Amino acid sequence: MSELGYDADLPAHVERALGAFLGRAGEEICRTEPSVHTGIDALSEFVLGGGKRLRPTFAWWAWRGAGGDPAGADAEGVVQAAASLELIQACALIHDDLIDSSDSRRGSPTVHIAFAKHHADNGWLGSPATFGLAAAVLIGDLALAWADDMFADAPLPPATMARARPAWRAMRTEVLAGQYLDMRTQATGDTSVEAALRIDMLKTAAYTVQRPLHLGASLAGADDELIGTLLQFGGDVGVAFQLRDDLLGVFGDPSVTGKPAGDDLREGKRTLLVALGLERAAQQGRTGAVTVITDAIGNADLADTDVDNVRQTLVEVGAVDAVEQRIDELTGTAMAALDRAHLAGPAPAELTELVVKATKRAY
Amino acid sequence: MSELGYDADLPAHVERALGAFLGRAGEEICRTEPSVHTGIDALSEFVLGGGKRLRPTFAWWAWRGAGGDPAGADAEGVVQAAASLELIQACALIHDDLIDSSDSRRGSPTVHIAFAKHHADNGWLGSPATFGLAAAVLIGDLALAWADDMFADAPLPPATMARARPAWRAMRTEVLAGQYLDMRTQATGDTSVEAALRIDMLKTAAYTVQRPLHLGASLAGADDELIGTLLQFGGDVGVAFQLRDDLLGVFGDPSVTGKPAGDDLREGKRTLLVALGLERAAQQGRTGAVTVITDAIGNADLADTDVDNVRQTLVEVGAVDAVEQRIDELTGTAMAALDRAHLAGPAPAELTELVVKATKRAY
Repeated sequence: MSELGYDADLPAHVERALGAFLGRAGEEICRTEPSVHTGIDALSEFVLGGGKRLRPTFAWWAWRGAGGDPAGADAEGVVQAAASLELIQACALIHDDLIDSSDSRRGSPTVHIAFAKHHADNGWLGSPATFGLAAAVLIGDLALAWADDMFADAPLPPATMARARPAWRAMRTEVLAGQYLDMRTQATGDTSVEAALRIDMLKTAAYTVQRPLHLGASLAGADDELIGTLLQFGGDVGVAFQLRDDLLGVFGDPSVTGKPAGDDLREGKRTLLVALGLERAAQQGRTGAVTVITDAIGNADLADTDVDNVRQTLVEVGAVDAVEQRIDELTGTAMAALDRAHLAGPAPAELTELVVKATKRAY
Repeated sequence: MSELGYDADLPAHVERALGAFLGRAGEEICRTEPSVHTGIDALSEFVLGGGKRLRPTFAWWAWRGAGGDPAGADAEGVVQAAASLELIQACALIHDDLIDSSDSRRGSPTVHIAFAKHHADNGWLGSPATFGLAAAVLIGDLALAWADDMFADAPLPPATMARARPAWRAMRTEVLAGQYLDMRTQATGDTSVEAALRIDMLKTAAYTVQRPLHLGASLAGADDELIGTLLQFGGDVGVAFQLRDDLLGVFGDPSVTGKPAGDDLREGKRTLLVALGLERAAQQGRTGAVTVITDAIGNADLADTDVDNVRQTLVEVGAVDAVEQRIDELTGTAMAALDRAHLAGPAPAELTELVVKATKRAY
């Protein structure tokens, strides 16, 4: 494996590592119990079937930026440790889809839907939906357990692994806390700007950017000051990334995002965009605008014309401009932190490109 | 901590270690996001609120039997590693209760029921059942992630931890595979003796006895021969334990077992007892007996008189005697393996007592 290989085509290396791990782990348990192969295959297809590999990429460039050598003895182990983040993400998505009753992801049926169909197609006993629920819970659990196995068994020196444990620990707890906060906020109906920002910080910034950077940097032996600077960078990038996602969830082109227009509204997502829309409409005394937004949130039967109405309202009260401005500010402070980090090698340029992709993307 | 303390009162040490870990981990995430404390509290109550601490106990005595010194530097770390098995068990039970739609466990509402009620009591938005589902999925996930943190961060030398990883890996995958096989078998309606025994091996023997023994022995540096002997011992004990459980699930006194009589029948559990009942009734040409058993399995509305009928049938066709005989045989081969293992110190006597408790218990 040449050092150029890793830097130039990281996603391919991440997929190779995931494929090798899933092959080994799946073969081992299927030797004991062959009938579980349907579940293992579903997990493998899910993990190897796509995704932007964003978390491993942030981890890799933090490792490189903190002095990791792509031609050194640790490089392959770092790829394996970074790739294991995709298994945490598989658990998060499979369980999230179950909780949200989502039917499809990346153009395929979600796991609970696919297994309910498998049950129904075979004319098995009991309820297909219960079978789908059970399969999604267990396959998500397996992904989480295997994430730990893949991470812990990465071929790296014990001292290196010990340095990375705090980031690994924090990441898994934070994403679960973020999901918990998210569902609690939807239930209590808290539409405040503060609640939206706290969810963005935990569920996206910490989990998707900060902790992967933290993990990569600590695998390279970074000191607390550098890790602190990377956490600032990651927090700002992560929130900006989520704000872009929120805008795309309402204004995005379905043919590009792959999601029906306005689905975030129908699902009742508590985003900063919506929180600012409500706050500003109230401040401006536009009670009609407040009603338009409030009635749309969580309304599963929302028509496309209603979505257009909400869009227009969010623009008129200035919420869209405010979110765009916030993205610009966060991008600015993130880039300043990146400068202060004085990262090595091609890391600054690569991370800058990731920031641009994450905050300016159309999908 | 005196060495006598560990041997004499292991469950108290396991609970102390769990309480300390849950306190630390919970405080850390609640500093970041205070609103998650309801979820953390629910997990802590669940984990600290009871259970036989069977898995940590098997792990401890295997460690002691393979030469672990309760006055040595590793003892506290081994308690922590062994106690972490209770967090895997918390995940398994919380998710199992959700999948099985169980309302209560150990006399308290299950997690998904408690959180659905919390939602309803507060008059929150959306469906209480969906909120309960989300909470149970996420709190179970947290237990699984924290099991790994508690295990991986046990204060033990890296070489010791590395030796224990194969057992840790196998255990988590095997319990999930066993649960998957269990739900698949219930769905396909496979009532064979073979299927029942395969589930018993994976879901109970491997997870509850074999792998905890494997874990403890490998933490003590046991060689492959000793581990192999302990796996034989554990496989036999574990299946015998499950067969006793199956008998209690149909014949147990509800005031002692804490479960309504015949609940295993209503839930449609595919046990060896039922499989042997069907097999023998068919061999004996008793079609009426086959019908009595078949109609009872998975019949949620089964009356107590129907349960009496099934009991009588299982006795008459000889299934109960056959299961009792199998328990005796397994206990015999288990004790022979235990002899061959030549374990140190009080371990043989302690493990013998566990075998007796597990196979002769009335609850």
